[in-house]
Amino acid sequence: MTQQHPLDAMLHLQPQADGSFVAHTHAGYANMVGPYGGATAALLLHSVLQHPDCLGEPLSLTVNFAGPVGDGAMHIVPRAVRTNRTTQHWVVELRQTDAQTGVQVVATTASVVTAVRRETFSAEAIDAPTVPPAADCPRFDVRRAMTWLQRYDWRIVSGGLPTVWDDSPHPTQSRLWIRDEPARPLDFASLAALCDVFFPRIWLRRARIVPVGTVSLTIYFHADRAQLAAQGSAHVLAQADAQALRNGFFDQTAQVWDTQGHLLATSHQIVYYKE
Amino acid sequence: MTQQHPLDAMLHLQPQADGSFVAHTHAGYANMVGPYGGATAALLLHSVLQHPDCLGEPLSLTVNFAGPVGDGAMHIVPRAVRTNRTTQHWVVELRQTDAQTGVQVVATTASVVTAVRRETFSAEAIDAPTVPPAADCPRFDVRRAMTWLQRYDWRIVSGGLPTVWDDSPHPTQSRLWIRDEPARPLDFASLAALCDVFFPRIWLRRARIVPVGTVSLTIYFHADRAQLAAQGSAHVLAQADAQALRNGFFDQTAQVWDTQGHLLATSHQIVYYKE
Repeated sequence: MTQQHPLDAMLHLQPQADGSFVAHTHAGYANMVGPYGGATAALLLHSVLQHPDCLGEPLSLTVNFAGPVGDGAMHIVPRAVRTNRTTQHWVVELRQTDAQTGVQVVATTASVVTAVRRETFSAEAIDAPTVPPAADCPRFDVRRAMTWLQRYDWRIVSGGLPTVWDDSPHPTQSRLWIRDEPARPLDFASLAALCDVFFPRIWLRRARIVPVGTVSLTIYFHADRAQLAAQGSAHVLAQADAQALRNGFFDQTAQVWDTQGHLLATSHQIVYYKE
Repeated sequence: MTQQHPLDAMLHLQPQADGSFVAHTHAGYANMVGPYGGATAALLLHSVLQHPDCLGEPLSLTVNFAGPVGDGAMHIVPRAVRTNRTTQHWVVELRQTDAQTGVQVVATTASVVTAVRRETFSAEAIDAPTVPPAADCPRFDVRRAMTWLQRYDWRIVSGGLPTVWDDSPHPTQSRLWIRDEPARPLDFASLAALCDVFFPRIWLRRARIVPVGTVSLTIYFHADRAQLAAQGSAHVLAQADAQALRNGFFDQTAQVWDTQGHLLATSHQIVYYKE
C-alpha cells in the first residue's frame, strides 16, 4: 500500500447529511498557530471542486481569514449561490466549535468562481523572469523550520530571507522555484496552496521579524487542467512583491509560472503586521 | 436647495425591518446593460460602512459579479460574520426579483474586511510614475459615450483607447488622472467606484472591441479617512495593466495614487471576454 501524500490527507472531507463536510487540520501543515493559510485555501477550494454540482474549473478564489483556525475538526459549508451557463459562483464557510462556549463560529470565508473555458485569443502580457533552473538554485534548509515549510522543496532564486536581522531597508521582491515535498503532480488545490508560500514581505523590507497574519487572499487561475497535467511535479517559478506597507497592513502581489514560462496563476493578499 | 451628487443619489439605501436595504440603480451610472460595475461595488461597500455595527475603515473589498443586475430595485443584505477586536468580516448579497418567475436571485456577492488601524512603520514599495499634471493631459471626450463614463472627468496620460481598431498588438498599460464629474470630495465609496473605470485591457491589447464583463474584483484600501480628506476633489492618478489573457478571461492589476504620489488603493480583477 502506498502512503497518501500529506496534501491529499489534509484535503480529506467527510460528507455530512446536510451537504456540508467535516475536515481535520493536518499536523503536516501546522503553522505557528493552527494550519498554514495556503492549506486552508486549498481545502476550501477543494470542497467546491469535488462537489457533484461543480461546473467547470476554478477561475478565482478569495479567502478571508476571519479568525484563528484551531487544530482539530472543521465544518466546511460550500454553497452554490448562482449557476450560469458557463460560470458558477460559490460561497464557502469554515466553522469551528468554540471549546469554551460550544458555539459554532465562522473562522474563514471564501468565494469561488468556476468556469467552463473555451479556446480564444490568448496572450501573456508579462514575461516570466529569466532565472537559472531550479537545480542550480540553493535549496532552502527547512529542517528546523515550522512544519508546513517542510511540505515544500524550496530553491531560492533571489530575495531570500535577510541573513542579518538589522532593521536595514531591503527590496521586497522574491523569486523562487518550489514544488510539493514529497513531489506530487500539480493540481488546482496544490497550486492554490502554493500561492501563499512567500515569507512576509515586511520581514524582507525591514530585515526584522514582526508578527503577521494574512487577512484576505485572492487567486486568479489562468491554467486549465491540461496545463497543470503537463507541469507534473516539476518546480514552478514563483515571484512575490509588495506595493504598500501602511499602518498595520501590507499587500503582496504574486505570479506563478510553469517551467515553460506560461502563467499558471496570479495572486494578491493583504496582510496584518504588528508595529 | 443644492442638488445631490449623482454618486450620493446612487448610494441611497432604504432600511428594511429585517436589517437589509432596498436600493435602486441610478440612470446616471448606466452601463451597456444594467449599472456600471464600479457603482455596484461602491454600493455594496457603502451598505457595510453606513451600518451601525461597522468597526473601523475598509481594508479589503471583493465583489463577485454573479449575474446581470437589471435596472430597478435591488435588495442589499450585509451580514457581519465575524467581529474581532480590530477587524471585522462582512459578507453582502445583492438580490433582485426575477420578473418572469418572481423568485429572488443573487446577482452579486461581496466580502468586506474593515479594520481599526493604528500608526506603525509604513513604506511605499513602488513609486508613483512621473507624469504631467492633470491640467496638462488631454480630456477624454465622453459626450457621446455610455452614461457612466460621463460621471468622471478623464485626463489621459498614456495608454488611451486605440485610435484605429485594426487588430494590431498594443501595450496593455494605461495611466490617467480621474475624478468624479461633477467634482466631489473623495471617500471610500467613490474610491471603490474609481477602481473599476479602466477600459478593458483586451480592447487595448488587440485594438479590437469584444464583449467583456468583470467576474470578480478585489480592492485593497491603503488610505485612511484623513488621507482621503486631504485629497479632496482633486484628480487621482490611476494605472492599470494586465498579466494574462487566456481562453476567455484576462486579469487586470491597478493602482490609484493621490496627488502627493502616495497609494490610495490597489486593485485586481478577472474579466470575461468573448472570442
